[in-house]
Amino acid sequence: MEPAVNSPPAPTLAATDYWQGAAGDERTMARNITAFDRCVLVPRVLRGVTEVDLRTTVTGGEIGAPLLVAPMGLQALVHPDGEAAAATAAATAGVGFCLSTFSSCDPADAVARAGAGLRWFQLYLMRDPEITGQLVSCAERLSFDAIVCTLDVPVVGRRNRDRVYGFDRFTAAPPALVRAPWFEAIAADRGLSPKALLDDVFPHPGCTWDELAATIASTHLPVLVKGVLHPDDACRAVRLGAAGIVVSNHGGRQFDRSVSSVEALAGVHAAVGEVVPVYLDSGVRAPAHVAMALCLGARAVLVGRPVLAALAEGGETGVVALLHRFVDELGHIMRIVGAATTGELTGVQVLRA
Amino acid sequence: MEPAVNSPPAPTLAATDYWQGAAGDERTMARNITAFDRCVLVPRVLRGVTEVDLRTTVTGGEIGAPLLVAPMGLQALVHPDGEAAAATAAATAGVGFCLSTFSSCDPADAVARAGAGLRWFQLYLMRDPEITGQLVSCAERLSFDAIVCTLDVPVVGRRNRDRVYGFDRFTAAPPALVRAPWFEAIAADRGLSPKALLDDVFPHPGCTWDELAATIASTHLPVLVKGVLHPDDACRAVRLGAAGIVVSNHGGRQFDRSVSSVEALAGVHAAVGEVVPVYLDSGVRAPAHVAMALCLGARAVLVGRPVLAALAEGGETGVVALLHRFVDELGHIMRIVGAATTGELTGVQVLRA
Amino acid sequence: MEPAVNSPPAPTLAATDYWQGAAGDERTMARNITAFDRCVLVPRVLRGVTEVDLRTTVTGGEIGAPLLVAPMGLQALVHPDGEAAAATAAATAGVGFCLSTFSSCDPADAVARAGAGLRWFQLYLMRDPEITGQLVSCAERLSFDAIVCTLDVPVVGRRNRDRVYGFDRFTAAPPALVRAPWFEAIAADRGLSPKALLDDVFPHPGCTWDELAATIASTHLPVLVKGVLHPDDACRAVRLGAAGIVVSNHGGRQFDRSVSSVEALAGVHAAVGEVVPVYLDSGVRAPAHVAMALCLGARAVLVGRPVLAALAEGGETGVVALLHRFVDELGHIMRIVGAATTGELTGVQVLRA
Amino acid sequence: MEPAVNSPPAPTLAATDYWQGAAGDERTMARNITAFDRCVLVPRVLRGVTEVDLRTTVTGGEIGAPLLVAPMGLQALVHPDGEAAAATAAATAGVGFCLSTFSSCDPADAVARAGAGLRWFQLYLMRDPEITGQLVSCAERLSFDAIVCTLDVPVVGRRNRDRVYGFDRFTAAPPALVRAPWFEAIAADRGLSPKALLDDVFPHPGCTWDELAATIASTHLPVLVKGVLHPDDACRAVRLGAAGIVVSNHGGRQFDRSVSSVEALAGVHAAVGEVVPVYLDSGVRAPAHVAMALCLGARAVLVGRPVLAALAEGGETGVVALLHRFVDELGHIMRIVGAATTGELTGVQVLRA
Repeated sequence: MEPAVNSPPAPTLAATDYWQGAAGDERTMARNITAFDRCVLVPRVLRGVTEVDLRTTVTGGEIGAPLLVAPMGLQALVHPDGEAAAATAAATAGVGFCLSTFSSCDPADAVARAGAGLRWFQLYLMRDPEITGQLVSCAERLSFDAIVCTLDVPVVGRRNRDRVYGFDRFTAAPPALVRAPWFEAIAADRGLSPKALLDDVFPHPGCTWDELAATIASTHLPVLVKGVLHPDDACRAVRLGAAGIVVSNHGGRQFDRSVSSVEALAGVHAAVGEVVPVYLDSGVRAPAHVAMALCLGARAVLVGRPVLAALAEGGETGVVALLHRFVDELGHIMRIVGAATTGELTGVQVLRA
Repeated sequence: MEPAVNSPPAPTLAATDYWQGAAGDERTMARNITAFDRCVLVPRVLRGVTEVDLRTTVTGGEIGAPLLVAPMGLQALVHPDGEAAAATAAATAGVGFCLSTFSSCDPADAVARAGAGLRWFQLYLMRDPEITGQLVSCAERLSFDAIVCTLDVPVVGRRNRDRVYGFDRFTAAPPALVRAPWFEAIAADRGLSPKALLDDVFPHPGCTWDELAATIASTHLPVLVKGVLHPDDACRAVRLGAAGIVVSNHGGRQFDRSVSSVEALAGVHAAVGEVVPVYLDSGVRAPAHVAMALCLGARAVLVGRPVLAALAEGGETGVVALLHRFVDELGHIMRIVGAATTGELTGVQVLRA
Repeated sequence: MEPAVNSPPAPTLAATDYWQGAAGDERTMARNITAFDRCVLVPRVLRGVTEVDLRTTVTGGEIGAPLLVAPMGLQALVHPDGEAAAATAAATAGVGFCLSTFSSCDPADAVARAGAGLRWFQLYLMRDPEITGQLVSCAERLSFDAIVCTLDVPVVGRRNRDRVYGFDRFTAAPPALVRAPWFEAIAADRGLSPKALLDDVFPHPGCTWDELAATIASTHLPVLVKGVLHPDDACRAVRLGAAGIVVSNHGGRQFDRSVSSVEALAGVHAAVGEVVPVYLDSGVRAPAHVAMALCLGARAVLVGRPVLAALAEGGETGVVALLHRFVDELGHIMRIVGAATTGELTGVQVLRA
Repeated sequence: MEPAVNSPPAPTLAATDYWQGAAGDERTMARNITAFDRCVLVPRVLRGVTEVDLRTTVTGGEIGAPLLVAPMGLQALVHPDGEAAAATAAATAGVGFCLSTFSSCDPADAVARAGAGLRWFQLYLMRDPEITGQLVSCAERLSFDAIVCTLDVPVVGRRNRDRVYGFDRFTAAPPALVRAPWFEAIAADRGLSPKALLDDVFPHPGCTWDELAATIASTHLPVLVKGVLHPDDACRAVRLGAAGIVVSNHGGRQFDRSVSSVEALAGVHAAVGEVVPVYLDSGVRAPAHVAMALCLGARAVLVGRPVLAALAEGGETGVVALLHRFVDELGHIMRIVGAATTGELTGVQVLRA
């Protein structure tokens, strides 16, 4: 399947604000970035780095560079080709892709088109465990390499931009673009509208550690947890069998007084980094941010809004270009600081301003 | 008694500056806010918070959320309905109300109208202990739930805005609006004008710890002390029987080089928080500030200027709307950070930028 | 002798820049002020401060408030009445006055007119010890209460503003205003022009601790040292008999990368504050700065540029008004923070932002 | 040989951006400067500094002041007289000069014209050790006093300004100005174009510590290493025989998230400063920066872009004026802070804001 050649319809302002915005006054979204930008590295010399090897073993497989496309729902809002384009671009660039539960593209189509690239499936634990189970089964059936269980949405964050438009993910946006086929299929099974099902099962504020444990036990797939900022929560998840931790504040979309991801990373890594890989998302806007996260212990980094921006502008081609730029620049940084492999980046010292 | 339906007279600039202003160049007023805004929280996950319970036991009773309207005098300056409107709004919203000694509304009217809401009475220790005693008796007679003894006005702060207008609380403002009936009644008993009595007894720079002890001993009501910033002062007050501490710098209205309230909170809480509840006012402009204060150990928070702004704009209805917004948003924050009760907020980590 | 009633001649830009300017890009002058403005105090309550007593025992006597007019040369540049006006104003306001070696007013006139106010004489150690001795004799003869030996001018600082005008203190400014009678008298004794003598003896980069010791030994007057920023220099001066230390960076006029006075104060006070009084100048622009310096251990504070500004605008009357404002506001701050005496201010906690 | 009297051709924008620019968004170039500007010194008094002696023993000889012109390639880009002018100016001013491998002036001409001034030769370790050896031989033949081996260019940094112009050092700029005769001679020996040779041998990402050791062993000249920021790298170089360390981030031209030179200096000095002299470049824009670096342990400082700016504006005369200003002002600072020799500056305390 080829990327769409038609130019995308002009996105509505509501859609643009939906993905560009964040909770409250967007302080945390900004802090995610500025916290990175206050860091500097201490390069090393004479490391003999003729070739850099960016390959990284992550949960579920190996990727060509320590990058994954972060799970973001409803990508058709920014480009009709949506997740299929982004996933295919990730595969082309040799990095990972994480598909959202609320993919606006049929997951089977995305998988078929993206081919052999490493893929994670982002899962919300639903109020009805049967629904959760069905989603896990989908992930297994489509041979996802891991499940990423997002824990930081006990309730949906309050985003001022969305309030302006009264944006509701299933109503205000052009219906043809805003669909979540996977979720819709499950709703159809139950004879419910997707919205009715969603209202029934999401979000799940009452979700407990037991339910996470049950989900981990229910599948042969490794289960990462995402949205963790406190070391104690990371430890608890690992004790229950989590295969890795994604340090994240949901791109600042949940709580506008949250610690930034890079501030939280070192603590989480110190707590569980010897046992499972630690990942990061939220605030990654530049290849140097990826390098910094790796220096601070991250195994790989999930990139969100830059991918959506590239998707909006250039579809699959745009995302490939963006990811190539990140990979190329990260390789350059590794040469400059003297790290031949991503693992060697861990030894590079980070100072904060 | 119904809220006034007539639109309020346009407030004078002097009145607006009176309540919006603060001491000196208003550095401390600003620092009160920015000190909050430099803090972030570390949310927790999977706490199973289906319902949040904002009820809080404070000195003198229980309130529906950890909020009280701070004691502010002469509220008729911003709305003819003054304290009666604000107190009624607090009762409607299920939060506490603290009435100023210099209430421009007859306290009996405010109490009658506000009904069963928790009410504190703010007291200045006067140069003439008999006057202090009469005020305490008033508070007892009207069944206030506690007395809040303000200690940070040995002299009145110097506020540049007030100097501009030559504002004097009993003369320059429209007399019909600027009255303090309670105090006037006591003055009338003595055959004095309110101003003459005020000049005789307020402020009381010579006030000592013994006088505080005497006031505590004189009443069956619990006595909180307000305006404390140093842990040693908090300890001393508690040893003398204070039922709680309100960490406050009087909204920055007393001293323009004062430590901010949130900077002082942790030290005071560490000193006496195991023994008595600690409260905070000064600088609370957003529900997140309330959450932060509670994370740092406050039992509840007093909200001042935002209430006056709402009162000025919308009278009782405006204050109800404001308080509902604070309560609603605080509940949202509790869900997002994983605290089912206000007590659980205490365990949430606060980081400073 | 009455203050001049004629309006002063319009000051030249060169003169204005001379006293308003400082070394280099004036970073240190600015830092002197901002370092104060980053500090806050922690007020205390219920200290029973009915009256504040600002009287302070300083080297050589008692003053009504912990303030002195800093030694500044050539005050006729800003007002024809110069040092005589400023000294008289200080006496009127009950504070101290420190006369510069380069007073543009005849010291005898200033002393006669200022009357009984505490007076210090600022001394430069000259390359010719005989000249130094003559200046000391003058100070003794005119019954100065102490000598303040300025140590931070081994060479004159480079001030960009002065470079613009090619300002030379004895040539570019109106000769009638720019005189240093005291120094001129000594020059006349030797049959030299003041400029020739000055070139011969000032500044004295080779000056050593021995010369300071010799000067201390040569007079019955107590000798303070001024311009000290390092604790070790303070200790050494005290071991040689210095009666006190003035922490100062010469108002930022000497070195534009110098530590600020308030940053240096605590260290110097910790080193010698138990043995001799420690004073501060440089950066004092507000009464709150005076209070902060006292909280950090200063016995009293020297105020410079604000006095010159008041002198320029209002002559003696202007300086009296300024000093009264400082005294009044300092008393207010003492009441607000709970200090009945200047000594009690030492116990008040200072926090830095 | 006299400096060129013809006015230089207007530099191309590409050339201007080449030397004024730095890697990425030039954050590190800015941070190099701001990190200096956050420092202040604590002057000392009564040190008896009649004369300051700025003479400094550096690797390879003595210089009149602790300054060297930093190695910068292709100086003909800013002035036709290029390195010959700058080297001559350095000799005139009594400071050192470091010639780049990519000197656009014939090194023999520069040496002949500059005369007896101390000269260092900057060397890149090339992919072909024979080339490296030939360069070392050139340096020996022309009686350079030391070799400075630049280690921080495993790959060339990415400079956004250069990308704008597609600047390539041997093609886009006027060929008559952009030559590297020394390197060209070696290329000619091999029958290669300079560009072809350069592509073959530079940069040398695979360079190892062994190759540094071999170069050190191959010459009687002392070998400094430049571009070191981490103390461990400094130690390793010293163990291999390095005669000194130049702490540098290549003026921010290599990596735009690098620690600043002044931040890195103290650590490197603590690690090896007892054994070998430590130098600094990157960010030196003012004489006070030189003083600060010396206070923090640097033996001398290399000045880069200010020299190029002076060269562009005024040729040899301009550089002499600049260097004289630096020397003069540094002497002034030494007097002001109380250091008679550059060695005494080491004892002066530096505080960071």
